[in-house]
Amino acid sequence: MTSEGPEGRAPRRRGRPSGAATSTGPDARTRILAAARTEFAGRGYDKTSIRGIAKEAGVDAALVHHYFGTKDEVFAAAIEVSFEPALVVPDILAGPVESMGERLARTFIGVWEDPATRAPLLAILRSALTHEAAAKVLRGFVLRRLLERIAADLDVPDPTFRAEMAASHMIGIAILRYVLRAEPLASADPEKIIAMAAPTLQRYLTERDAP
Amino acid sequence: MTSEGPEGRAPRRRGRPSGAATSTGPDARTRILAAARTEFAGRGYDKTSIRGIAKEAGVDAALVHHYFGTKDEVFAAAIEVSFEPALVVPDILAGPVESMGERLARTFIGVWEDPATRAPLLAILRSALTHEAAAKVLRGFVLRRLLERIAADLDVPDPTFRAEMAASHMIGIAILRYVLRAEPLASADPEKIIAMAAPTLQRYLTERDAP
Repeated sequence: MTSEGPEGRAPRRRGRPSGAATSTGPDARTRILAAARTEFAGRGYDKTSIRGIAKEAGVDAALVHHYFGTKDEVFAAAIEVSFEPALVVPDILAGPVESMGERLARTFIGVWEDPATRAPLLAILRSALTHEAAAKVLRGFVLRRLLERIAADLDVPDPTFRAEMAASHMIGIAILRYVLRAEPLASADPEKIIAMAAPTLQRYLTERDAP
Repeated sequence: MTSEGPEGRAPRRRGRPSGAATSTGPDARTRILAAARTEFAGRGYDKTSIRGIAKEAGVDAALVHHYFGTKDEVFAAAIEVSFEPALVVPDILAGPVESMGERLARTFIGVWEDPATRAPLLAILRSALTHEAAAKVLRGFVLRRLLERIAADLDVPDPTFRAEMAASHMIGIAILRYVLRAEPLASADPEKIIAMAAPTLQRYLTERDAP
């Protein structure tokens, strides 16, 4: 195994002959994250390795370690990128309070309806449901961060609990519709789901005296 | 391997020296189902075999085939037994309409709070989320059967869709609380969860003009 100085200027490239990319720099970091998502999605958490991610990204494994550290940390970084659409949720919540539930439902369903964002979310969810290490990462890096950011914008008692109740409904819909593909939810018009779920989210996130 | 006639009277037993059980009859059927739940829960869907279930139950593999057929069919039967508590849901729904949501939330949370019923449900959920064969069984044998039984008792438009929206919320709560163990939901008082979710289920299941 060769060792490229992670800080060094792009040394001669090994492995992939493909053209555009360099093996260090911001571009390499992006490629590594994309490779990590592909590997975790395709192989599952167990069978994914730093070495496999490096190979997929066309870089040395040492560079993956340099940018991200352990496998858990690569997983966490891949999760964060995948959840970027979700991290705009607090901005959405900052709009008119009376339509907060509807905006949240629409954003969530939109992220899952788009195959490009759905695939990594599915991979993360599957990994977390079957591997404690992945569950821990999801709990620590994303759920809490996301929930607490939402909760900070809410004017209700127990805002984090309320945010998590809302999240639980959205996650349950995702599992029945996109993972288990259970009918009639799997084929329902997204607008019908949004219309049904929005008042629930609205109540959880905005009604001070609920329940 | 010896072949015991599945219909035959209990021949001399092999393998397990433990006392009470016979290797055929209703008791053997019960033992096979218990063994199937143990195997699917402990090994996952992929690694569970008819032979392993038979060994765990102290019977011949031919008897497992005789009672249940294929591995998928054993899985389906194990699911049905595990979901028995859920199959009482329609009876619960038959009570006073104004407290339907609360009864449903309480029953569901109760089933998950009990470790004896939680373990097989967790195993089923994990299998279904990671293996299409298990997902298909869950879709076909249980979700539809359960949802359609509930829907038959509802006096709202799209009753099956409404029942599935309610189920999605309960499943999402189970995943965050019992599988991912994400706080604050994981440590919340069950009564607090029931109180928050009940009005949602009530609206889905009983309010004709919702949303």
